[in-house]
Amino acid sequence: MPATRHVLTLSCPNRPGIVAAVSTFLFEAGANIAEAQQFDDAETTRFFARIVFDHPRGAPDEAALRAGLAPIAERFAMRWALRDLADKPRVMLLVSKFDHCLADILYRWRIGELPMVPSAIVSNHPRETFAHLDFADIPFHHLPVTKQTKLEQEAAIWALVQETQSELVILARYMQVLSDGLAAKLAGRCINIHHSFLPGFKGARPYHQAHARGVKLIGATAHYVTADLDEGPIIEQDVERVTHRDSPDDLVRNGRDIERRVLSRALRWVLESRVILNGSKTVVFS
Amino acid sequence: MPATRHVLTLSCPNRPGIVAAVSTFLFEAGANIAEAQQFDDAETTRFFARIVFDHPRGAPDEAALRAGLAPIAERFAMRWALRDLADKPRVMLLVSKFDHCLADILYRWRIGELPMVPSAIVSNHPRETFAHLDFADIPFHHLPVTKQTKLEQEAAIWALVQETQSELVILARYMQVLSDGLAAKLAGRCINIHHSFLPGFKGARPYHQAHARGVKLIGATAHYVTADLDEGPIIEQDVERVTHRDSPDDLVRNGRDIERRVLSRALRWVLESRVILNGSKTVVFS
Amino acid sequence: MPATRHVLTLSCPNRPGIVAAVSTFLFEAGANIAEAQQFDDAETTRFFARIVFDHPRGAPDEAALRAGLAPIAERFAMRWALRDLADKPRVMLLVSKFDHCLADILYRWRIGELPMVPSAIVSNHPRETFAHLDFADIPFHHLPVTKQTKLEQEAAIWALVQETQSELVILARYMQVLSDGLAAKLAGRCINIHHSFLPGFKGARPYHQAHARGVKLIGATAHYVTADLDEGPIIEQDVERVTHRDSPDDLVRNGRDIERRVLSRALRWVLESRVILNGSKTVVFS
Amino acid sequence: MPATRHVLTLSCPNRPGIVAAVSTFLFEAGANIAEAQQFDDAETTRFFARIVFDHPRGAPDEAALRAGLAPIAERFAMRWALRDLADKPRVMLLVSKFDHCLADILYRWRIGELPMVPSAIVSNHPRETFAHLDFADIPFHHLPVTKQTKLEQEAAIWALVQETQSELVILARYMQVLSDGLAAKLAGRCINIHHSFLPGFKGARPYHQAHARGVKLIGATAHYVTADLDEGPIIEQDVERVTHRDSPDDLVRNGRDIERRVLSRALRWVLESRVILNGSKTVVFS
Repeated sequence: MPATRHVLTLSCPNRPGIVAAVSTFLFEAGANIAEAQQFDDAETTRFFARIVFDHPRGAPDEAALRAGLAPIAERFAMRWALRDLADKPRVMLLVSKFDHCLADILYRWRIGELPMVPSAIVSNHPRETFAHLDFADIPFHHLPVTKQTKLEQEAAIWALVQETQSELVILARYMQVLSDGLAAKLAGRCINIHHSFLPGFKGARPYHQAHARGVKLIGATAHYVTADLDEGPIIEQDVERVTHRDSPDDLVRNGRDIERRVLSRALRWVLESRVILNGSKTVVFS
Repeated sequence: MPATRHVLTLSCPNRPGIVAAVSTFLFEAGANIAEAQQFDDAETTRFFARIVFDHPRGAPDEAALRAGLAPIAERFAMRWALRDLADKPRVMLLVSKFDHCLADILYRWRIGELPMVPSAIVSNHPRETFAHLDFADIPFHHLPVTKQTKLEQEAAIWALVQETQSELVILARYMQVLSDGLAAKLAGRCINIHHSFLPGFKGARPYHQAHARGVKLIGATAHYVTADLDEGPIIEQDVERVTHRDSPDDLVRNGRDIERRVLSRALRWVLESRVILNGSKTVVFS
Repeated sequence: MPATRHVLTLSCPNRPGIVAAVSTFLFEAGANIAEAQQFDDAETTRFFARIVFDHPRGAPDEAALRAGLAPIAERFAMRWALRDLADKPRVMLLVSKFDHCLADILYRWRIGELPMVPSAIVSNHPRETFAHLDFADIPFHHLPVTKQTKLEQEAAIWALVQETQSELVILARYMQVLSDGLAAKLAGRCINIHHSFLPGFKGARPYHQAHARGVKLIGATAHYVTADLDEGPIIEQDVERVTHRDSPDDLVRNGRDIERRVLSRALRWVLESRVILNGSKTVVFS
Repeated sequence: MPATRHVLTLSCPNRPGIVAAVSTFLFEAGANIAEAQQFDDAETTRFFARIVFDHPRGAPDEAALRAGLAPIAERFAMRWALRDLADKPRVMLLVSKFDHCLADILYRWRIGELPMVPSAIVSNHPRETFAHLDFADIPFHHLPVTKQTKLEQEAAIWALVQETQSELVILARYMQVLSDGLAAKLAGRCINIHHSFLPGFKGARPYHQAHARGVKLIGATAHYVTADLDEGPIIEQDVERVTHRDSPDDLVRNGRDIERRVLSRALRWVLESRVILNGSKTVVFS
């Protein structure tokens, strides 16, 4: 009988006995820990852990595991989540005109790099914009937006999130700023790729800002979306070297490569339950 | 009463219950886990862990901890080590003419980056070679070597290792190949910096080899010394970009930077008990 | 009247007066130098230059430029090439089962990053293998290969190169080793992506070799194809950090990212006439 | 008769004929160009070049070269500089308490990596602070500073710059902000290392700011000092990866490595006349 593999993520105030309690429970439940990482934040005295474990299929079932973990979680005041790693999260993808991140995510999904179910692709640009991309069976929704229709469009997005039961929303170079209301509704499950090495060059046209400042490296940042634009918890960043020879267009080209690899890494880590929020920061068990 | 901090490293065949047994023991002994990492090697089915824990000074003392851990270690057939992190390893430094790694290690030791006690500096070149370096109270030994005197010199080195009770020997650009005999004696506690990105450019003059091959990146490798030259378990590697403009001398200059940061990282990790041997490879809990 | 932009690349034995002769000719021909790089190889005493210049459309025309440059080239014993940058090279793409490099090249070509005309896509696997890729109007040729039919297949490839007037052949993870004969015919215009940081891990299954050796960085290498497998002049290399946690599959996944960015960079540089052969090495005016 | 080697740097409005004029002059003067790079800034339509050339010792002498270049420079409205590469710039080093950059610069100078003459070491901390550093014959000046004595101290620094005929002033982690007056006096010849990846984390305690923001990479920036704090033209930047595990102290340690390599690279490039100011940016012919 093959094994099932679960991942348990948790955070709680740090005090002695957490690991002993959880690992003893898992051992007694017949589980074998395959991977475990933990982190104690000395500043906030908060404890974080990610535990991947295997157990014989069906015994105990997930409900039994949850029932056994609940009193431990309560004792230590944990925020926790248990997931069967075979259950792939449903992910909605938002995109505007530039589709390099979307194309990259779809390619990686297709070859099995990203364990997810794309629930919908939403754009303020029509389907023709992405004529060369194979969307397979993923529903596409054209939700154009003007100053006048922004709220209606956001309402439509939110309705789609609910209808499609999307657990995650990816702004894959979606060039519309979410309203505070929608950002709040999507708190902790909406990821944006910003095309600069934050906190440098917030706001519009970051590559042109970077060129004007004469920096010698440019970067990109994947972060959780919050009401505070470009201030959300950072999941991943990366950079590339540039020189005085590089025009703003060269930075944009170079930046596309950074953006797509930063966003896809962040997305994969979230899909594998490797990222835990820690106030305005993240713990990433990569 | 202030706490003491210990680090426990262990490896053993993987089977259920290891984490539960160790963490329960530590909890019952009054210890609080501050940091823990583990790794299951799917290939060898071997389990590795590094656990840092605090406990009130003196209760239980280290002997009691060891006594308590011993039966658990035996049950799981563990190789294990327990260290008070306040006990700094004694480290012997070997160097030839090029002293950039030595200078770097001494500087980092002086400002507190490397928790060690330098037990001796040994060179086949005389003290004047290092005239500009402040060796403080570290004893210096000039052990010149010729083809004829190689064995005597190695015997002298080995005698010094024992006399100085050195737990670690660092070949900080020591340009003499250790004999199989000495390599065997120092197995698992002698680290070399090789000035190439292994396994490329083994042997002599690797930067000249790299220049001749026209590579676009050069590197350095810190590894445990084994009888098989340049084949020991790798602890750390890094690279830098080079171009067709770079002469062999430019590679050498560039390489010095890579060597010293790779060696000092590897050394710090070993001093902090972050590196565990895994056959011909290493597990590095960085 | 808009300007045309040409690129002149040249190499010759180094002696005084080369830059003066060429730049004076270009100035008198009414051209304006937009970009220039040069390199003197101290080892071989050979001189290399790449000069991009603009001149009013039609005056002088390219034939006049060539006629004017010819005697200078003869005087200095130059190997030289003059190209109108608006003339895009015709490029044949060869691929086996893994299509991440092919998909990436097609995407970049489509959005204008790669100034080329794809002349044909050739694979030893059938069209269905690439069902999700939009090949637009690029002709696809299925040329299956067995030990028995290898020579016939190579003859067919060579015939296609000639028919399609392909100036460049890209082995975009084409897993067949070219025969010495075909390698010789394609000398200087065939580029391969090898999935290791050469000269480490030549030959088959380099990621598995890298995993077995326990390296801390993996890489990829784009190089000109020569009869000597994995020994051709290197155009570009890059690496990524890996850890003991990474399985061979993780290295393969990570490696896909390195391969595609290394190959696309090398290809772009070749398309922009930035790469000049220098014996078994390359000069890259990036 | 051995050759002398000069470097000519120049910038001027771009128009046809610059390279032809300069290279023809050099050729006729018997010089052989060993290295040349140029850059046309499409935005400002300004042209930049760095030309290294050899000529037989004494014929023509430097005065003759200058006399010959002067009318060409005037014709094209050049800003230009000609230097015998054997003439090493005099460099004053300023430092506060943290001496990792100073120690690194002195080490590199000693082994010949930095072609300069250290003219003085100046600190607001006493000589004992640097007890372990060998200052050789370099004069040390203790210029303590308080709010009350800041202007006097700056006057003393300026007097020292003049007395010592220092062409370059390096703020090697000198933690005093220069007044606008002194910054103006040192315009174009004073380089600071800022311990963040500018423009992120300007001002005080950048590593603590970086830790609070939860960035995944930290960096350092070498830049020319201007009256606008942390806004001067950037010469070089670099970064290192950090994780949630890294405390502010870990960032500081990691940062020391970045700072010293960024500053020493920038310094070497300036000493080799590879850096030309371009408004608020730099051209770096690395």
